[in-house]
Amino acid sequence: MATTVCVDGIGLAACINENLNAEMGRLDDLALSVNTFWLLFGAVLVFFMQSGFAFLEVGCVQRKNQKNILIKNVFDASIGALAWYVAGYGIAFGYDSYVKTGDTNGFIGTTGYFLAGSTFRGGDVSDEDLGYTWANWLFQWAFAATCATIVSGAVMERISFGCYLIYAVTLTGFIYPIMVHMTWSAGGWMSAFREDFLLSRCGVVDFAGSGVVHMTGGVAALVGAVMVGPRAGRFGPSGEVRALPQLSWVYQAIGTLFLWFGWYGFNGVSTLLITGKGLVAAKVMINSTLSGAIGGLSSTLVALLMNGYIDPAAANNGILSGFVAITGPSGVVQPEGALLIGFIAGLIYQGASNLLLKLRIDDVVNAAPVHLFCGMWGMFAVGLLAEEHNYGRAYYEDRADICCGAFYGCGGNQLAAQIVFILVNLAWTGVTSAIMFTVAKYTVGLRVSKEVEEMGMDSSKHGGLADYAHTEGNKSLDNSRNGLFPVGADEIHVGSAVA
Amino acid sequence: MATTVCVDGIGLAACINENLNAEMGRLDDLALSVNTFWLLFGAVLVFFMQSGFAFLEVGCVQRKNQKNILIKNVFDASIGALAWYVAGYGIAFGYDSYVKTGDTNGFIGTTGYFLAGSTFRGGDVSDEDLGYTWANWLFQWAFAATCATIVSGAVMERISFGCYLIYAVTLTGFIYPIMVHMTWSAGGWMSAFREDFLLSRCGVVDFAGSGVVHMTGGVAALVGAVMVGPRAGRFGPSGEVRALPQLSWVYQAIGTLFLWFGWYGFNGVSTLLITGKGLVAAKVMINSTLSGAIGGLSSTLVALLMNGYIDPAAANNGILSGFVAITGPSGVVQPEGALLIGFIAGLIYQGASNLLLKLRIDDVVNAAPVHLFCGMWGMFAVGLLAEEHNYGRAYYEDRADICCGAFYGCGGNQLAAQIVFILVNLAWTGVTSAIMFTVAKYTVGLRVSKEVEEMGMDSSKHGGLADYAHTEGNKSLDNSRNGLFPVGADEIHVGSAVA
Amino acid sequence: MATTVCVDGIGLAACINENLNAEMGRLDDLALSVNTFWLLFGAVLVFFMQSGFAFLEVGCVQRKNQKNILIKNVFDASIGALAWYVAGYGIAFGYDSYVKTGDTNGFIGTTGYFLAGSTFRGGDVSDEDLGYTWANWLFQWAFAATCATIVSGAVMERISFGCYLIYAVTLTGFIYPIMVHMTWSAGGWMSAFREDFLLSRCGVVDFAGSGVVHMTGGVAALVGAVMVGPRAGRFGPSGEVRALPQLSWVYQAIGTLFLWFGWYGFNGVSTLLITGKGLVAAKVMINSTLSGAIGGLSSTLVALLMNGYIDPAAANNGILSGFVAITGPSGVVQPEGALLIGFIAGLIYQGASNLLLKLRIDDVVNAAPVHLFCGMWGMFAVGLLAEEHNYGRAYYEDRADICCGAFYGCGGNQLAAQIVFILVNLAWTGVTSAIMFTVAKYTVGLRVSKEVEEMGMDSSKHGGLADYAHTEGNKSLDNSRNGLFPVGADEIHVGSAVA
Repeated sequence: MATTVCVDGIGLAACINENLNAEMGRLDDLALSVNTFWLLFGAVLVFFMQSGFAFLEVGCVQRKNQKNILIKNVFDASIGALAWYVAGYGIAFGYDSYVKTGDTNGFIGTTGYFLAGSTFRGGDVSDEDLGYTWANWLFQWAFAATCATIVSGAVMERISFGCYLIYAVTLTGFIYPIMVHMTWSAGGWMSAFREDFLLSRCGVVDFAGSGVVHMTGGVAALVGAVMVGPRAGRFGPSGEVRALPQLSWVYQAIGTLFLWFGWYGFNGVSTLLITGKGLVAAKVMINSTLSGAIGGLSSTLVALLMNGYIDPAAANNGILSGFVAITGPSGVVQPEGALLIGFIAGLIYQGASNLLLKLRIDDVVNAAPVHLFCGMWGMFAVGLLAEEHNYGRAYYEDRADICCGAFYGCGGNQLAAQIVFILVNLAWTGVTSAIMFTVAKYTVGLRVSKEVEEMGMDSSKHGGLADYAHTEGNKSLDNSRNGLFPVGADEIHVGSAVA
Repeated sequence: MATTVCVDGIGLAACINENLNAEMGRLDDLALSVNTFWLLFGAVLVFFMQSGFAFLEVGCVQRKNQKNILIKNVFDASIGALAWYVAGYGIAFGYDSYVKTGDTNGFIGTTGYFLAGSTFRGGDVSDEDLGYTWANWLFQWAFAATCATIVSGAVMERISFGCYLIYAVTLTGFIYPIMVHMTWSAGGWMSAFREDFLLSRCGVVDFAGSGVVHMTGGVAALVGAVMVGPRAGRFGPSGEVRALPQLSWVYQAIGTLFLWFGWYGFNGVSTLLITGKGLVAAKVMINSTLSGAIGGLSSTLVALLMNGYIDPAAANNGILSGFVAITGPSGVVQPEGALLIGFIAGLIYQGASNLLLKLRIDDVVNAAPVHLFCGMWGMFAVGLLAEEHNYGRAYYEDRADICCGAFYGCGGNQLAAQIVFILVNLAWTGVTSAIMFTVAKYTVGLRVSKEVEEMGMDSSKHGGLADYAHTEGNKSLDNSRNGLFPVGADEIHVGSAVA
Repeated sequence: MATTVCVDGIGLAACINENLNAEMGRLDDLALSVNTFWLLFGAVLVFFMQSGFAFLEVGCVQRKNQKNILIKNVFDASIGALAWYVAGYGIAFGYDSYVKTGDTNGFIGTTGYFLAGSTFRGGDVSDEDLGYTWANWLFQWAFAATCATIVSGAVMERISFGCYLIYAVTLTGFIYPIMVHMTWSAGGWMSAFREDFLLSRCGVVDFAGSGVVHMTGGVAALVGAVMVGPRAGRFGPSGEVRALPQLSWVYQAIGTLFLWFGWYGFNGVSTLLITGKGLVAAKVMINSTLSGAIGGLSSTLVALLMNGYIDPAAANNGILSGFVAITGPSGVVQPEGALLIGFIAGLIYQGASNLLLKLRIDDVVNAAPVHLFCGMWGMFAVGLLAEEHNYGRAYYEDRADICCGAFYGCGGNQLAAQIVFILVNLAWTGVTSAIMFTVAKYTVGLRVSKEVEEMGMDSSKHGGLADYAHTEGNKSLDNSRNGLFPVGADEIHVGSAVA
């Protein structure tokens, strides 16, 4: 124990004050370490959602396009990491690290690019503070990677790889970070952390990203699905919907459970602190559980009433819809509010899914119904169902009586802010996505050729069908292609080059 | 730093006492935050076991019933959450939150239903205390969801969906919570937390649920499997066993590894605290590892001796058996005890599995051999192998010399309590399960028709076969069914309704 | 609050000193609990890598050998636990628990076998200290289990089960622990924790195991693959490479994502402390992310240039290569260093993979290119890219100006140490592995017979093909084999023995 041993007499008070201050400093450092741990815990949980999306998406794909979607899933995380490193974090949180807040213009951050600058390598803050900032970088990256993955599921089976690369980079490195800065950065013009929002003192509440993450991903997914057009054979000549076979219901269901698991990090750890926020964190996780659970049930019930059978896909997507919808409100609503939000989300999902088909929009995994429509509902629901004490605990006690939801007596302040957000997100993400896909169209091309689509991406673009039956026992494959190749690459034989 | 700066002279002691008390309060709050984090960490790990059960069960099912078991797996968690919200937690822990303990009748809790009341929204406890209680709700819910899933694996491929709904709700919302209250609630009549157990001062020790969770699930599974009868074709006319094909050995093995992973939360985090309980937690995780590891090996060895080959299913189920058996004793035994418990669990599993087949009971995933028989063995083993110091650390030091196991010199006190528990559980769960399945039989029906069973659940109840080969390239499926439908739904075409 | 209430006057200082010391003790205990939690968090993440390896390996296997590799995967963890219990931990860390450090000979530990002795059950240290040591046992076990799994992937589809058992036990219980003791034990002769390394004050830096874990596993894998020889049909008469079909690209990709997830525990938690090390931990996780991400991209790019298509296997293995390479340097390099390390790792992987094929070495999952070659590169890279401040934070500030990398102005001190390590590892693991496989060759046999290999392990050794199609609807399988059997065992019917 390194404290000074104080003695009676003059100077005792000073000696003790010093010891006690040192002790308090150690306690503060410990709390910061615990909070860093908390963020790292959340980051790994959110990262696990990549496995969930991958499983879900490959489960919904046709056999001939397995490799294609799988490589996108691993690239979403990889490209996302580089884009977040180069630009994403800086745009999103520059001068708004949780350690240091400076002036911002409300739209775009100006520091923290390349994990550089005083935000990350400053000499004037303690290692504990820096550690927390680095941990937050990782946590936020995991969110960014989610956003691109949402799009991949909607446009799969016909989008060109070049177009994929363009949207993966642009979304993670620009469109999404701007949305983050405007809403989550301490200096963002719509941020709940500011008191000077244009309409009232109540900035936009999006606790964990119904709007910032899911709507953004969902809008881009919808724009992409519309612009790239439906898969060949998805709609008949008079618009009738044709089911295309999906690889595996098992993958889809396990993917859903994986996402449920990861969502505890996504929502729960969005408190960003566990010290002093344990109640918020636990309540967020419970709200999420209840909303997801009832969303799955309401969606299944609607599907049962309409189709006459109990449909696992309705359950899976209903669960995800409940989670998406509760993500934004999770910190500010009570469990009964969470149940209402989730129940309605299940209905919205079914309606939106049907709507898209009527419009002949082919969104393979129903990304827009789940992420866009239910994300929008979640943002709206905050304005109705934010409860005063919860708002106070999660945000500011001194504004809780004016920023709670319309159903809890605060009038329309919060609801107005939420509607502003929804309009801004639709406009920002809609327009930038449209530009992005248009640029892709006139450069790399939006879509693969009919021949490639018919044959499948795996055979034509990724070295051979993934399907086992296709390669088993095939000992006479030609040896004409040379070069490096992976273990077990289908149809690839390296003969003369190696021998 | 918000402490008062104390000065020399009269009043210095009072000033410093106050500062120090404030500091101690902050330290207590921090410890509580860390423990809340610990519970949330455990909750997500235990929830992940749903993925493990899902994979394991769908791996053991026939191809024609994939969707059916998958939707049960996602419903187990969903329905479990609602049942736990409405009634489960209140029954189990009402007036026995870890924050506030009041009178109980020893059988059923009376508060905390609907996440309401002072337990969850009280004004007289700190947010840190409330947060811990909310976190515990989530942790305990994840346990409850496990219990229903155990049953699903035993009765799959022929149980009716109505019957499934009945047992899922009843188990999670009533049968299991009563078992929890009697054993784990501070006021439960068999609880180790009381000193007035009927036989001695030693209440029942079930550290993480060999009995409360696994036996309960296992008894209900066995009753269900007996009452619903074997799958068509499982036994020949003279009782010979016929292997029915299982979907995937991969899913079964990966499911086992997932369960192993989740079990660290199940057992390790059952300390409920990490502060002051780090040794118990770490030892519990190690004991669990050793027991599961050797259970897999002993089970495999027996199977090798009997069948002449090394059987992955024997390894997988042996591992699970070792985990089930150590779950209850994990906090009170030494590693050498854990090894003995796991080794024997592997043998018990093999014996019980064989016994069921001789009795022509068709328990598809061997739920009863794993969860009931090995759960029972674990509860019994506590009475033999509880070591004094471990008991002292995990429970009460002042009773450790009378409540340890028979092999450690404490005579039969603990063993007697454990036997009482086993009998009570068999009686309670056995009788209530039998009533439950009987009610189902005379209302919704226990079992699907022969035609449905032959055709498979997926085709007849869930919109079409999950199997890819069945739908691939089938472009002439009829368009006669209308309404909403999921992406990629097999055999479903929405024609006129949409167009 | 249990503190004494101090009063003004003589003795006030003593009273307060005592109170404050008690408070400091509680704070120290809390910090230790948090660090125990940190290690347990890491242990479960690293254990999850078993699921990742299992998925990856079964994804690369031929259909006829599924069960065989799956049982090895569950055995790797099981046998690993027992070997670590009996000998591994004692050899690796005996007298070098993080609590108590005694004399060591620099090569092999002498206490802590069987989780016994004062290290684990001592009466002279606090429960918090013991808890931390037990948690570290678990964390380190998870690493050891990884090592054996690496070998399994290289030699699968033809290695005998007896040989598997020999290498699993020997690697986990002897070869690997010795490597650990020499490098990671406080008393290890190459350890960075000592100041008296033979060449300079700079001992070997292997932050999380590029060398200790991955090179060791990779060397053993390569030796095994060479000695057991290629699979039948892998190489044509003139050395041309023939692709053998692999079970599932989905499993391979999901396995990769699982490993990525688990690697956050592997690398990040290797700080062993979160208190005071939060910055190191967060930076390690970010470095790992960046290196893995760019490794996947550089590997894919090379494969694209050489083969003309975008290859998911190249992406997957490139990601793993980036992670392996950064594992050792992760604590001491900057993000820009991590990017360079990962980029080069992707290239090295492709080169090494090609080299092995030219040498007609059949390493099924490319274990040696990933783990050996990229592990070696990671160890070397430390000597180039260790940055002074990072070295100071992760290791010793007072040696940072002499032990940083050559590119950061410290000359060749660290590089020399790293080269020594590489040579020692190649020699130690190479020679002991060769002896081990030679012993296996002349006792249990290295390799299964040609007939067994042709037929596949599952049919010949594990009770029947795992493949569903093979068993579906097969109701006339013979009943001639008796004894216990698992649910759904293919082709196994127990008739007379049971009836």
